[in-house]
Amino acid sequence: MADTAEFIKDLCTPAFVVDLDVAKRNAAVMLDRFQKLGVQLRPHMKTHKTLECADIMTGGSRRCIVVSTLAEASFYADHGYDDVLYAYPLPRDKVQRCAELCERMALFHVLLDNGPALQELKRRPLKQGKLWRVWMKLDCDNGRAGVLHSEPAALQLAREISETTGVELYGIYAHCGNTYGCKGREQIEAIAQETTTNLLQFMERLKAIGIQGLKSSIGSTPSCSHPVPDMAMLSEVHPGNYVFYDVQQSLIGSCRLEDVAVRVLTRVIGHYPHRNQLLVDSGWAALSQDGGGCLPTGYAVIQGHPELKLTSMTQEHGRVEPVSGPLDFGQFPLGSMFSLIPYHVVQILQR
Amino acid sequence: MADTAEFIKDLCTPAFVVDLDVAKRNAAVMLDRFQKLGVQLRPHMKTHKTLECADIMTGGSRRCIVVSTLAEASFYADHGYDDVLYAYPLPRDKVQRCAELCERMALFHVLLDNGPALQELKRRPLKQGKLWRVWMKLDCDNGRAGVLHSEPAALQLAREISETTGVELYGIYAHCGNTYGCKGREQIEAIAQETTTNLLQFMERLKAIGIQGLKSSIGSTPSCSHPVPDMAMLSEVHPGNYVFYDVQQSLIGSCRLEDVAVRVLTRVIGHYPHRNQLLVDSGWAALSQDGGGCLPTGYAVIQGHPELKLTSMTQEHGRVEPVSGPLDFGQFPLGSMFSLIPYHVVQILQR
Repeated sequence: MADTAEFIKDLCTPAFVVDLDVAKRNAAVMLDRFQKLGVQLRPHMKTHKTLECADIMTGGSRRCIVVSTLAEASFYADHGYDDVLYAYPLPRDKVQRCAELCERMALFHVLLDNGPALQELKRRPLKQGKLWRVWMKLDCDNGRAGVLHSEPAALQLAREISETTGVELYGIYAHCGNTYGCKGREQIEAIAQETTTNLLQFMERLKAIGIQGLKSSIGSTPSCSHPVPDMAMLSEVHPGNYVFYDVQQSLIGSCRLEDVAVRVLTRVIGHYPHRNQLLVDSGWAALSQDGGGCLPTGYAVIQGHPELKLTSMTQEHGRVEPVSGPLDFGQFPLGSMFSLIPYHVVQILQR
Repeated sequence: MADTAEFIKDLCTPAFVVDLDVAKRNAAVMLDRFQKLGVQLRPHMKTHKTLECADIMTGGSRRCIVVSTLAEASFYADHGYDDVLYAYPLPRDKVQRCAELCERMALFHVLLDNGPALQELKRRPLKQGKLWRVWMKLDCDNGRAGVLHSEPAALQLAREISETTGVELYGIYAHCGNTYGCKGREQIEAIAQETTTNLLQFMERLKAIGIQGLKSSIGSTPSCSHPVPDMAMLSEVHPGNYVFYDVQQSLIGSCRLEDVAVRVLTRVIGHYPHRNQLLVDSGWAALSQDGGGCLPTGYAVIQGHPELKLTSMTQEHGRVEPVSGPLDFGQFPLGSMFSLIPYHVVQILQR
């Protein structure tokens, strides 16, 4: 880990640091895994929103990515990325900006799960005879966006999209975010299997009504870290968090703790023996409150110090105390540095 | 509220909007309140970190503010602000940047609560014969940073600061963040009184050892929204959140819900009758998870809809369902807008 490097000790804290070797390894493993399965990896950018990680995750191709906001879409388009899927239920206020992205890029994909959104696309035909490239979002029991895979409305919407002028039904997109409730590989594989089966069966039902040649995609870092063999029958996968991983992913069973590529560096800024506490210069503005302090070590893992707990945070302060017993303050002089492994890495980079 | 304005309905969502009339009123009330008490208001910038709100909160003077990070300090210095207090226990990695701010500004104040930090200042004398202007942080039973007011170490540190070459002990600074655990004006006033009493008694003990002419300051939006008469004996106060307020502050009793100046606008992006849920386009990236969904209406108050609850969020999605009974989907067509009153406004602006 980079915290042994000399320059690290001079950084102003709190500092978010990435071990590029680990991030590159995580990205290479995922690229290799799905290349061998013959499935296109379309990595999600929402975790990091950087060019550097996008380059690492696309293997330098700068093609074939997923984004969750139009700000991300424009950012990547501005920097020469293409074949970008805006994997978010298309809201009417964003149709015009999506149209402009379609018109300026070679491949910009949108996603929808309802008829009114389709009507919005119809009302805004693309210039130069281009077609809206549409993925239909299917809910394979994840319970967030998507037409429920088992409902007749799903087939009906697919048919409507495929019959709408100016629009091309390009693929069916499912997200298995329910893997985040898993504990261990077996549970992850069960949900990966269930999602894949539901999606592939839906593709068969589409074929039966004459809709074929569509792409199919599922995602989530847990399922793509432990893919089941049937996932080889999909066209694409779209995980994102795996480039960094985090403590949450290690608890789910997606990775080992040593695969987590990121740290928040923080310094001891106060000794308070009367309450058996240290203060550090990372609060929720640096680390996020995600996980609600559910770890035995509180809001993060303090690297090399399983005996310490980050018990509470305010905007810029964190309180550290021993898991049990009295704190040996001499071991942690004012100004000394801790390396925190974050519970959920996504939130931090939002700040 | 601005959500009745015509332009609002065309905004891309999620959108963070500020009702400037309400923010200006909140700021004017606070300015007027402490002017009448003869106490200098030194507003905290960490909630919004904008020039616009800083201008409103300083009454246009662009003087006398508090910041919690050096990024904020530099930002305000770059834009002509002066008399800036960096109210954060001075960590050693930031001494050089603080020195540069001291040297380029007329008045830049630092804060510390321990001897080693004082030694760092001594090791970096300021150019042009300037003195480090130091506030000592006193913990008046808030339990975060600061030397505990009742400990002999507090008087001893004050003496050390006042005797250190190149340094001027300028004031004693306490934060009554423990008001955030209050419910109602009476409890707020009790903590405001206790903090004020502890601080004023400490000032008396300082006088007794020959240290006088110092400034004294307490803060927190709850205590400054309901100041006790003794607070007129302080030199300064330093609340921050009050320019916006939020649902949390209304529950503490600092303000009425109609004093909350901010909203997060969001649109309905999905209807899921099989699970009695709507999806909206605000997740925790727009709204934060602060409060942990503790409200009867979940993670926010949905303006005009006490019957609805924001039950859960992912990065960019929010799930809305009725507090009880079946949802009338016809009342909330796809694309229709909700105005969310956030639980805690600070986090949102961090994103």
